[in-house]
This record gives sequence, C-alpha cells and structure tokens, in this order.
Amino acid sequence: MEEKEISQAVIRRMPRYYRYLGELLDAGVERISSNDLSSRMNVTASQIRQDLNNFGGFGQQGYGYNVQYLYEEIGKILGLNTKHYVIIIGAGHLGQALANYVKFEKLGFVITALFDVDPELIGKSVRGIPILALEDLPDYVRNHTVDIATLTMPKSKADTIANELVSLGVHAIWNFAHVDLELIDKDVIVENVHLSDSLMQLSYNTVKHTKEKGKNFE
Amino acid sequence: MEEKEISQAVIRRMPRYYRYLGELLDAGVERISSNDLSSRMNVTASQIRQDLNNFGGFGQQGYGYNVQYLYEEIGKILGLNTKHYVIIIGAGHLGQALANYVKFEKLGFVITALFDVDPELIGKSVRGIPILALEDLPDYVRNHTVDIATLTMPKSKADTIANELVSLGVHAIWNFAHVDLELIDKDVIVENVHLSDSLMQLSYNTVKHTKEKGKNFE
Repeated sequence: MEEKEISQAVIRRMPRYYRYLGELLDAGVERISSNDLSSRMNVTASQIRQDLNNFGGFGQQGYGYNVQYLYEEIGKILGLNTKHYVIIIGAGHLGQALANYVKFEKLGFVITALFDVDPELIGKSVRGIPILALEDLPDYVRNHTVDIATLTMPKSKADTIANELVSLGVHAIWNFAHVDLELIDKDVIVENVHLSDSLMQLSYNTVKHTKEKGKNFE
Repeated sequence: MEEKEISQAVIRRMPRYYRYLGELLDAGVERISSNDLSSRMNVTASQIRQDLNNFGGFGQQGYGYNVQYLYEEIGKILGLNTKHYVIIIGAGHLGQALANYVKFEKLGFVITALFDVDPELIGKSVRGIPILALEDLPDYVRNHTVDIATLTMPKSKADTIANELVSLGVHAIWNFAHVDLELIDKDVIVENVHLSDSLMQLSYNTVKHTKEKGKNFE
C-alpha cells in the first residue's frame, strides 16, 4: 500500500467505521453500499469513499463493500491485527474502571499491570491484573513488553512519570491526567482524554442552546 | 456581547485556555501576553487572539491579558458561572469513577445521583451520592433539576434510556456508551467520550510511527 500523510480527522473517523462495520457483521450483513453505510453513519457517501480511498479503496463500483473484508482491513489500518500490551499508572477508580473494560482486550489491548503508591492497593488485583508498587515500574518496563502506558494519576505527578516511562522506552501514552504533558523527548505519541474539557464543551453547547431557544420565545 | 456562530474547533480549545489560566492563577501570575500564553500552550499567538476575538477580545494592545479576568470570562463563556446538575446512568466502575471526581464539582458540575439495575448497588452511595434504582429514574427527573445525564451503561440499553431521558426533558447527554446514540428528538446536545475509539487512534499513530522509524533504518 502507498504511504501518504493521512489527516488526523480521517483517522478519527476510522474507529467509527470499524465500530459500525462490527455491528453490521454481528447483524449478519455481508455487503453494504457506501450509500447505506453513509445513511447509517450520518456522513455523506462521498466522505466515506474519500476516507477509504486514503487507504486504497476497498469498494467495487456498483457492488458495495464486503463487510467482513472492510472490517478486517480497517482493523489492520488501526493496528488491531497485533496485540498491544498496556499498563495503567494509577489504580484509583478510573484506573480500575479501565482495567475492568473487557472490550479493550477484544480489540487487542491487553492490560498487564496497574501501578500505584497506595499500600492499601498494592498487592491486590483487578480482574486478575495485579496492582504493583510504582517503585517497581522501571524494573517492570525493562522486563516486559509495554506498548502503551495509561496515565490516570494526579496531574502533579504526570510529567515526571511520563518522562520516566519515555526514558525507559515507552513511546505511546494514553493520558487521562488533566494536563498537557511536557515531554523532554518529543518522539512519543500522546492521546489525551481530558474528561473535564469534554464536560465543559458540553456545558458550553448546552448554555448556548438554551440561550438560542430562549430567543425563539422573545 | 454579539452572538456569532462559533466553530466547535474554537470551543474545543476554550477548556484548554481555561485550564492554563487556572494554572497561571495558582502560580500567582496576574498578567500574561498572548506570546507567553502561546509558547506555554504550544499554539500561535495569532490563534489565541483570533479565538478570543470570537468572544469580544479581552486583551489590551501591548499590555497583555489580565489572567484573573480572562479566566473568569472564559469560565462564563463555558457556562461555569452556574451550577449544572448531573446524573449518571450506570453505577459500574466507570460511573463510580466519574462520581468520585471532585474536580467536576469544583467546575460547577454537581453529581446528584447514580442509577443502576444491579440490586447489589442500589441503596449504596459513592462519595455520599446515592445509587438509585433505574426504575425510579422518571420520578427522579420529574422532581429534580437534571441538566446533564451521563450514560455509562452498556450500549445495548443506551438508545432506549437516552430517548427516555430526552422525553423527560433532559437536553444534554454525556455519552460514554460505545455507540452513537440514535435520538428521536434531535433537540439534544450530545458529547461523546468513546474510549475505545481514542485507544484505536493511539494504536494507529503508534503503528504508523513504528513503521516510519523502521524505514529510517532500511
């Protein structure tokens, strides 16, 4: 396949395609036109064709997409054809909630350990996944494959631990700490989930919406 | 203030400004130039000026921004000057993790109740917030202010409950269920947090990054 620079906007839509195709598969659908896929997904058919053309197409004119094939190909594009070993730093409520998601494992993301500083948590486990002492993190990373480190600890410690992880050779960080990480080594992929930001965006849109509705009654 | 249509891209940056300004306030900084703010936030100074001009400016030429004032004004824009009452449907690990976030309350998002169908959970509480029976949801919504409903239940039930909430008058949904909601009434604000999608995007970027690094050694 040709390598082109593909925009993050396209990449952001790919998991959604993957999700919808998975649902179609579950429902026993074998073939779908870009028009049908588009009306289900609420994007235009031309958007779908354009997005998929970035990766070489997959559709036959007038014949639609083979659901199973497209599902697998998008899975490969997203790197879901290999396992990714994931650790979670911070075994508080959020860390434990993430460790409990069996869904992630089905997608190939295998959570192997959680780390915390709380003596009450260390030695326990979540769904069979051990909670280890944070001080054992360097040893663990040296002796195990760690593809992705998930940060759910307080933001005050996030930079230090993130930089330590990177210096240990971890190059992908899934960051839930409420801070934009300042990394010394820039050769790292960071994906942020800022829950408060998301809530504020919802709040903005809600307030705006209420104002607009209010206007209609003026 | 003039009302204009402001793009979601701008809105998405506002919580980040708010976060950085909050950090500056905590650090005792009273005034900051758009250049300094820009180098801290890793966006261009002209982007910052442009973004803030959507809301009327706030800066004085050559004199920078008053941190406290700008923080408060952005807070108002984001609707953080009023309380938002939030319920959570699904008191599993994620629901409980969200209920435990004291940070949300500081921003004005007050979680008043969780709902679940699990008899083991009903009657318990999280940080003093009661877990109620899902069947009591309609009564609860009729008798309490509910500005935002958070969905953390399995995706199979998400559409039904979301539509019920909307019919009860809830007009903002914070959706963690791994599905794009199909709402009958379109007059609803939905903000999605699709954790698997985020993980897949990270995976894509990691695989791509590894490939590119591999090429350098060819």
